[in-house]
Amino acid sequence: MSAAAETIRPDAAPVVHDAVLRLAGPRALTLDSGQALAQLAIAYNTYGELNAAKSNAILICHALSLDQHAASVNPLTGKPGWWELMVGPGKPFDTSRFFVICANVVGGCMGTTGPRDVDPATGKSYGLTFPVITIRDMVRAQALLVDHLGIAELLCVAGGSMGGMQVLEWMASYPERVISAIPIATAAKHSAQNIAFHEVGRQAIMADPDWRGGDYLEHGVFPSKGLAVARMAAHITYLSEAALQRKFGRELQDRQQVSYAFDADFQVESYLRHQGRSFVERFDANSYLYITRAMDYFDLAADHGGQLARAFARLKARVCVASFTSDWLFPTTESKRIVHALNAAAANVSFVEFDTDKGHDAFLLDLPEMEGIFGGFVNAAAAHRGLKAT
Amino acid sequence: MSAAAETIRPDAAPVVHDAVLRLAGPRALTLDSGQALAQLAIAYNTYGELNAAKSNAILICHALSLDQHAASVNPLTGKPGWWELMVGPGKPFDTSRFFVICANVVGGCMGTTGPRDVDPATGKSYGLTFPVITIRDMVRAQALLVDHLGIAELLCVAGGSMGGMQVLEWMASYPERVISAIPIATAAKHSAQNIAFHEVGRQAIMADPDWRGGDYLEHGVFPSKGLAVARMAAHITYLSEAALQRKFGRELQDRQQVSYAFDADFQVESYLRHQGRSFVERFDANSYLYITRAMDYFDLAADHGGQLARAFARLKARVCVASFTSDWLFPTTESKRIVHALNAAAANVSFVEFDTDKGHDAFLLDLPEMEGIFGGFVNAAAAHRGLKAT
Repeated sequence: MSAAAETIRPDAAPVVHDAVLRLAGPRALTLDSGQALAQLAIAYNTYGELNAAKSNAILICHALSLDQHAASVNPLTGKPGWWELMVGPGKPFDTSRFFVICANVVGGCMGTTGPRDVDPATGKSYGLTFPVITIRDMVRAQALLVDHLGIAELLCVAGGSMGGMQVLEWMASYPERVISAIPIATAAKHSAQNIAFHEVGRQAIMADPDWRGGDYLEHGVFPSKGLAVARMAAHITYLSEAALQRKFGRELQDRQQVSYAFDADFQVESYLRHQGRSFVERFDANSYLYITRAMDYFDLAADHGGQLARAFARLKARVCVASFTSDWLFPTTESKRIVHALNAAAANVSFVEFDTDKGHDAFLLDLPEMEGIFGGFVNAAAAHRGLKAT
Repeated sequence: MSAAAETIRPDAAPVVHDAVLRLAGPRALTLDSGQALAQLAIAYNTYGELNAAKSNAILICHALSLDQHAASVNPLTGKPGWWELMVGPGKPFDTSRFFVICANVVGGCMGTTGPRDVDPATGKSYGLTFPVITIRDMVRAQALLVDHLGIAELLCVAGGSMGGMQVLEWMASYPERVISAIPIATAAKHSAQNIAFHEVGRQAIMADPDWRGGDYLEHGVFPSKGLAVARMAAHITYLSEAALQRKFGRELQDRQQVSYAFDADFQVESYLRHQGRSFVERFDANSYLYITRAMDYFDLAADHGGQLARAFARLKARVCVASFTSDWLFPTTESKRIVHALNAAAANVSFVEFDTDKGHDAFLLDLPEMEGIFGGFVNAAAAHRGLKAT
């Protein structure tokens, strides 16, 4: 990821530009905490071509455990991009018409500066000396990238879960730069229950002696067990009870009878253990601490005098707020709060609740209705902007 | 707890008899796994007096993390009994009329034989060599205790959560011995989501290097951190989102602003950490593994040819099934499944869903409506049995 590389992929794959923007300076990125990063790398992918007017750019914001590989193979896992259903030629975010940008968040571990990187001031990995970051800090870094690309306005900013938080923050912090926005399966603040689940994950990581107070890299170890437990707990919250029941029920794994032991008798146990194991191969434990913390701190109303509508006072964008019936992590009530505030700000807002039993992660899955609605919404925003339909 | 001790407590406290029944023999307790315990201790409390006809006995079954101290001070924590609202003179389970029994479950750590105890065959603590137990094994041990007390029939068997599973197992395994039953906030089988949460807890314990493959006692250590994480994850499931929101919301703990660090900024974090810390002072880590496993294995229909109604074919008891609107761990749908099966078995069943936002743990809390209904139900069962009202 240290050098930019352009790849043409066959079939219906978009043109991918996999790059890193590097910024340096005493306050290369100023943070909400008052601290600053003197060196900032932003790892990002772009798909499709920016037009001459630079009016066809769409920013995709990723969720907690995802990254910039939205529509191209993840080099670490070899798996397809996490939103290939949505981003590509002829897809809702149509890369034959639009220029789609996706950047790894600040605090992440896929190329953008995070706790795993070397602190230029000490020559050592940051670990827990990395400053605590916020959703606004993530968005501030994205704005620097958008500046670097010479883009004044984004045709659309879209994302689910923590990605949706970033969308809301774009609407609040850069209202003049957002033409349209799609915050999905998200909330304007993290709830007590959500904070509680994150705290369990953090405590699981910190309880692992290989975490070493955050200095595991210096000691050549990694808190795999703690991070796996954190991922397992979180993963349950990404699925609905109905989805777990449908996928696994009480089915046994590779056996006819229970073992009367502590093996993974049930398929759901085996599945969760696999989720934990595979996560530690691709994610940094300290990044998990920092990014969950950023989500917990998110409270857009509190940042605007306690009234969410004020966050949207200067907003001109068309907004499509979306939720899923079976999402209990970011339930529809949270999306409705956002809609109410947008209405109170006389914003141009539509709201859609998708009927699915797949839970929070439904935004990553194949939902033709969702694809149709988001595609239509982006096309309408493009038409309003005078972009020709293909 | 090694010797029986009788205590008279002042005011409205019930007469407490705190005792241990000790049984020995090659198969003192035969288990579902095919294994057996050669020595069995059953630690139990009784409240009130058994009448001459031995017709006024009520068995209370405890939940996962509770014990036999239902209506008297817990000697380990110094806290009141966990169901003092329900059990005592003039309470729904009125100890001035009824003889109330509560025993620590097999596999537990409050005096009944469990993995912390010494295996008579080796002279060492069982650890993971303790046989895996089931809900039916727990109930089988309770039946031995009831035999020992000379009681043929129980006027009522009542309990919530895992206690409710035991109630259902009593109804299925000893239908001739149960006059009435109150299974509360429970299910006839553990769901995929419930198994998943338990598996996270077990993995957290096993990930703690101080667990030592279950042999921590031999090494003079204890997996406190892992057990605390397990408890934290479980505790979230005992409360509703609304209850967490009402109790904590996003309120900060002992500060005006977030710390931009990993302290417990939010009250809900501080609360969860406290729950974890206090649990490890009173509970055994291996007991937690065994008891969660017993709950996961529970599937009453599977034990009766796949049809839940068959489990209740010989049942004569009056049954009151109860659930709580905001309980997402054992939701009302699970209680309704039990009611449907009881109806299909032409059993004498009533069903009540209490409207509360307090979540699963509501059965432990002050709910006057619940107290009234359970008290009325037990009184009616007693009247049918010809017991005089006081």
